[in-house]
Amino acid sequence: MSDTAPLGKVVVFGVGLIGGSFALALKAAGQAAEVVGFGRTLGSLTQALELGIVDRAGFNVGQEVSNADLVLIATPVGTTPEVMARIAPCLGSQTVVTDAGSTKEDVVEAARACFGERIGQFVPAHPIAGAENSGALAARPDLYRGKQVVLTPLAESSELSIARVRSAWEACGGEIRELAPAEHDRVFAAVSHLPHLLSFALVHDLARRDNRELLFAYAASGFRDFTRIAASHPEMWRDICLANQKALLEELDRYREQLDELRDALQRGDGASLEATFDVARTARREWAESKTRT
Amino acid sequence: MSDTAPLGKVVVFGVGLIGGSFALALKAAGQAAEVVGFGRTLGSLTQALELGIVDRAGFNVGQEVSNADLVLIATPVGTTPEVMARIAPCLGSQTVVTDAGSTKEDVVEAARACFGERIGQFVPAHPIAGAENSGALAARPDLYRGKQVVLTPLAESSELSIARVRSAWEACGGEIRELAPAEHDRVFAAVSHLPHLLSFALVHDLARRDNRELLFAYAASGFRDFTRIAASHPEMWRDICLANQKALLEELDRYREQLDELRDALQRGDGASLEATFDVARTARREWAESKTRT
Repeated sequence: MSDTAPLGKVVVFGVGLIGGSFALALKAAGQAAEVVGFGRTLGSLTQALELGIVDRAGFNVGQEVSNADLVLIATPVGTTPEVMARIAPCLGSQTVVTDAGSTKEDVVEAARACFGERIGQFVPAHPIAGAENSGALAARPDLYRGKQVVLTPLAESSELSIARVRSAWEACGGEIRELAPAEHDRVFAAVSHLPHLLSFALVHDLARRDNRELLFAYAASGFRDFTRIAASHPEMWRDICLANQKALLEELDRYREQLDELRDALQRGDGASLEATFDVARTARREWAESKTRT
Repeated sequence: MSDTAPLGKVVVFGVGLIGGSFALALKAAGQAAEVVGFGRTLGSLTQALELGIVDRAGFNVGQEVSNADLVLIATPVGTTPEVMARIAPCLGSQTVVTDAGSTKEDVVEAARACFGERIGQFVPAHPIAGAENSGALAARPDLYRGKQVVLTPLAESSELSIARVRSAWEACGGEIRELAPAEHDRVFAAVSHLPHLLSFALVHDLARRDNRELLFAYAASGFRDFTRIAASHPEMWRDICLANQKALLEELDRYREQLDELRDALQRGDGASLEATFDVARTARREWAESKTRT
């Protein structure tokens, strides 16, 4: 416990990779006097305690939330509305709530339904820091260092709430960005959710063939990188797809049109068109990689 | 020059990454008395000489090929028929020819047309060792170490020819596999050519949007891995797509059906179906990664 920390009590729902790393980073930065964790299972909570991720395991939501300065909801996205419903009646007047979900419009909708007049105390957020591993064991204090954290404040979000959430993520090492919730969901449908769906689709299609062993035997480094995200968590990605259904359907339809164009070019043996498409892609991919190196 | 090497003169057409690494590996293994290189440009040949990739630059195809033990065609796939046509009239009775192309049925067709009665001296091959970099500067003697090299011998290929090509690639460190040419092309359409097309398509679609800068700004590690192969060489991939048109169109159509299934599940909000698909993919991807670690 630190009496000089900017934040008094921080409550984290979900003590896995995302919530656990947030807790560790805040503690390492001396930003929180006390971190209290809630978990879905006693096992994960015990593990988080043993690893020093949280100072205490919480049992009474009302007691812990009513006098907390900051509450992070980092449970699987599908359970966010349920956690919001549990904490909404107990929010203290100074309590600020944020989340870490990969989609934002659904979270905003749930928050409006749950928090009512207290909606100004909620600031949606999305730290862009995934990993193939999950759970408390995977948590580490530097997970967010140099990573983008997108805040999608509402018109009602109070200045104090936004400032508190922003400085907490900054203390974790995050680089803060701001987008409107709908814009956030459209952007991530294009650069994250669609690629995941495409990668899952390829591996699923190969895996259900009779000659899958032959095929996988010759898969090499290109396949390895293209399909790395197909090893992502099925439940988490089910929830993301459903939560961002509208934007993802639009991206999927756009992509199918793009594939149709390439198919037509291939069918008619139009090498110039194929090469032009590949060339635009390569140039864009290289420029992107260089811009990432610079920052 | 080594008088005790199993092979006398080896001639390499194309002294870039693939041909250059083959030459370096053979020389390092003491397998070739002399390596002579032909290049498309004087610049690349000079570079290959300076780097010690080849012992001599070849100028007269007839002179060099007529008394060579082994000829590797490692020029861009689209130029293979032209190289075959040039060397066919000069083949000595002991000269064995192989190639390194990513597709095999088109190469076999060109070889039959060019080599005629000498077709038994030709053994098609495909070393599974790409890299993002190309050119003589990228060549290295260990490129093929532990990598699969697929031979697709013809019914006419002589035992001596097959054995010579096999032991040359073994000397480079390759692990030799055999497939029929058509089977090779179907397998690589599925695990290599289709993923490249899908990755190019995604980046091209993003790159032509008005808000591409916003989109690319939020692309993270999942995008990076999924799109690494979209930085591949446009001309090379144009040639591969055209050479493997039939098998690639079949894979593309299969994949579009798979995407349609996922789209339908997403449209009707069928979380169970999405999760089941993702789960099959994740399990298969993990098993594949583990099998690659074991070997």
